[in-house]
Amino acid sequence: MEVVQVLHMNKGNGDTSYAKNSTVQRKIISFGKTIIEEALLELSSNYDIDSMGIADLGCSTGPNTLSVISEIMDIVRATSGHLRRPLPEFRLFFNDLYSNDFNYLFMLLPAFYKMLKEEKGIGLASSQCFISGVPGSFYGRLFPSNSLHFVYSFSSLHWLSQVPVGLESYAVKHLNKGKVYISKSSPQSVVNAYSSQFQADFSQFIKSRSQELVPGGRMVLSFLGRKSIDPTTEDGCYQWELLAEALMSLVKEGLIEEEKVASFNAPYYAPCAEELKVEILKEGSFIIDRLEAFEVDWDGGAVADTHTEQGKMMVGERVAKTIRAVVESMLESHFRMGQDTMDALFIKFAKIVGSHLSKTRTKYINFVISLVRKG
Amino acid sequence: MEVVQVLHMNKGNGDTSYAKNSTVQRKIISFGKTIIEEALLELSSNYDIDSMGIADLGCSTGPNTLSVISEIMDIVRATSGHLRRPLPEFRLFFNDLYSNDFNYLFMLLPAFYKMLKEEKGIGLASSQCFISGVPGSFYGRLFPSNSLHFVYSFSSLHWLSQVPVGLESYAVKHLNKGKVYISKSSPQSVVNAYSSQFQADFSQFIKSRSQELVPGGRMVLSFLGRKSIDPTTEDGCYQWELLAEALMSLVKEGLIEEEKVASFNAPYYAPCAEELKVEILKEGSFIIDRLEAFEVDWDGGAVADTHTEQGKMMVGERVAKTIRAVVESMLESHFRMGQDTMDALFIKFAKIVGSHLSKTRTKYINFVISLVRKG
Repeated sequence: MEVVQVLHMNKGNGDTSYAKNSTVQRKIISFGKTIIEEALLELSSNYDIDSMGIADLGCSTGPNTLSVISEIMDIVRATSGHLRRPLPEFRLFFNDLYSNDFNYLFMLLPAFYKMLKEEKGIGLASSQCFISGVPGSFYGRLFPSNSLHFVYSFSSLHWLSQVPVGLESYAVKHLNKGKVYISKSSPQSVVNAYSSQFQADFSQFIKSRSQELVPGGRMVLSFLGRKSIDPTTEDGCYQWELLAEALMSLVKEGLIEEEKVASFNAPYYAPCAEELKVEILKEGSFIIDRLEAFEVDWDGGAVADTHTEQGKMMVGERVAKTIRAVVESMLESHFRMGQDTMDALFIKFAKIVGSHLSKTRTKYINFVISLVRKG
Repeated sequence: MEVVQVLHMNKGNGDTSYAKNSTVQRKIISFGKTIIEEALLELSSNYDIDSMGIADLGCSTGPNTLSVISEIMDIVRATSGHLRRPLPEFRLFFNDLYSNDFNYLFMLLPAFYKMLKEEKGIGLASSQCFISGVPGSFYGRLFPSNSLHFVYSFSSLHWLSQVPVGLESYAVKHLNKGKVYISKSSPQSVVNAYSSQFQADFSQFIKSRSQELVPGGRMVLSFLGRKSIDPTTEDGCYQWELLAEALMSLVKEGLIEEEKVASFNAPYYAPCAEELKVEILKEGSFIIDRLEAFEVDWDGGAVADTHTEQGKMMVGERVAKTIRAVVESMLESHFRMGQDTMDALFIKFAKIVGSHLSKTRTKYINFVISLVRKG
């Protein structure tokens, strides 16, 4: 599976769309905001920028995309006001893979440009704003050298550029039977394949950005990871463990082939802080200003009581919807299952999740890293 | 009707899609190529460009979009080779309105990037290529100042930014009953409204581009116009005359309301050479290097014999498909007609066109203008 061709959040704004099911991601964004604010204050105080290049890497599509950039522009505006400087020109770049629903995002822009003008005075002759979509993988170059001042990426860098080498669906030996990601039962070779792929991808990401950011430029990255060095701990992988369980129960019902589950491995990796530091230091162009980890509820912090049957179901369904909006394109491409089977899978998954969360409140670990391009 | 929200070529690649019905536009592009080649040779010979900004304004979506840019890159490559200069970095911008099918265009990019690398050696470390989509109206600023070297636009500038002021569908008096564009029976006020809208739009276009192009930068524009100063001559408007006839025959059948036809006026204008020159000279930043007019067959030069019934039908259908792919979104938005009525309209239109062309071979007049940004 070539991730670059296949992975995209569910399109449009229907019931299973990403636009309607991204509460967890919104929560994560709100944690990242203070760190973005800090980074932008540093950037604006130290440099007088006429034309500011800002890129959202893995922007996806929907209201989250524009609300973040809008707050970034507010911070820059406030700082410019404080420093009695004119507002810079904004060059905004929305990046995601080729199959992202850019059409949906672009249709939101006329109202966004209108709001910028009316509420912020941006887009008038004095301070222009130019928005473009940049399709392509962030594990390679996307922008001209020294063209960006601020880069951010939310909930995207836990996706690898591909299924780890050796674990692709056409590999002869299926090393990770009955599982779809690193699991306690996975052989060491599976763990190694995942961590090598992460290292290759993340170092490529850092290297590409170091060429695109101006000296002193800033980058804030937020994505899922794990606390422990051990990649089989629950916080790093348990959502995949339960998805594998749901898939295997569909195998038992004869709805999908066991072979298909054996040959599926998610192009995902939840790194620990040490792995991140190693790659950043090895590349050498960035200073780590901050590296923080925080916990996020699987359901974005809903308050339903998971001790009642109804509460369990509600929480399970909410988590299942959030995950479906993100992984459906990938499952669809590998399993070629019909809509009915896809629905059955996520009903099953919702039940398993609800039941799991009534026993243990497993949480995601989310990293926020703030980096400065060396001068 | 806000054109910026409504106008787009038919999406996807089905039977009525623009991607499948743009032979006429392809023909027009091939006429424009020699002039593009000439302009690029001048540009590359006079300036040593490290990073070349190229924009396609009104790019639409489909194979035409990428084949033109590919040939442009070939010309730049050949010139660089000839002058023994390294290939510049390419920054390519595809612009169209917000509702254009950018998703379809972006899905063609992985194969395009691959071809650039394998066949042209572009995209490797020595010469990068960065592609982005820039949604928005070209009757306003789209790019930062002095960021572009070459701008081209094919088959787009005959679309106005809006239905001429005073002729909008909510206007109290319907001045142009039974017609959808300037017609021999239109009152002078309709002709004036159209030409004023054109002047306002085209001058805004020229002014915006003069800010975005570097001194010495070049622009090649190709779009429909007319030969005579009189805007009611057949070559400038007859396709609309026949579309109005088809609409009125649906009125007779009770399929659409007469009132709806009365309140519809196409946001289109076919200018004459004098009108173009006036606006360009008035703005003052561009030298007109070339201004040429040529004829294009309505069916892109198909060879069917319109003296047989079958030939008439074939030609009529082909012309109807080409026009449908372009105007359907607009008709849909105004008339709110169902798919059946839309089909009926274009069957009727095909017959009228076939019959007309068997009597007179009316042709489009297409302008190609090559402009140089003053130093």
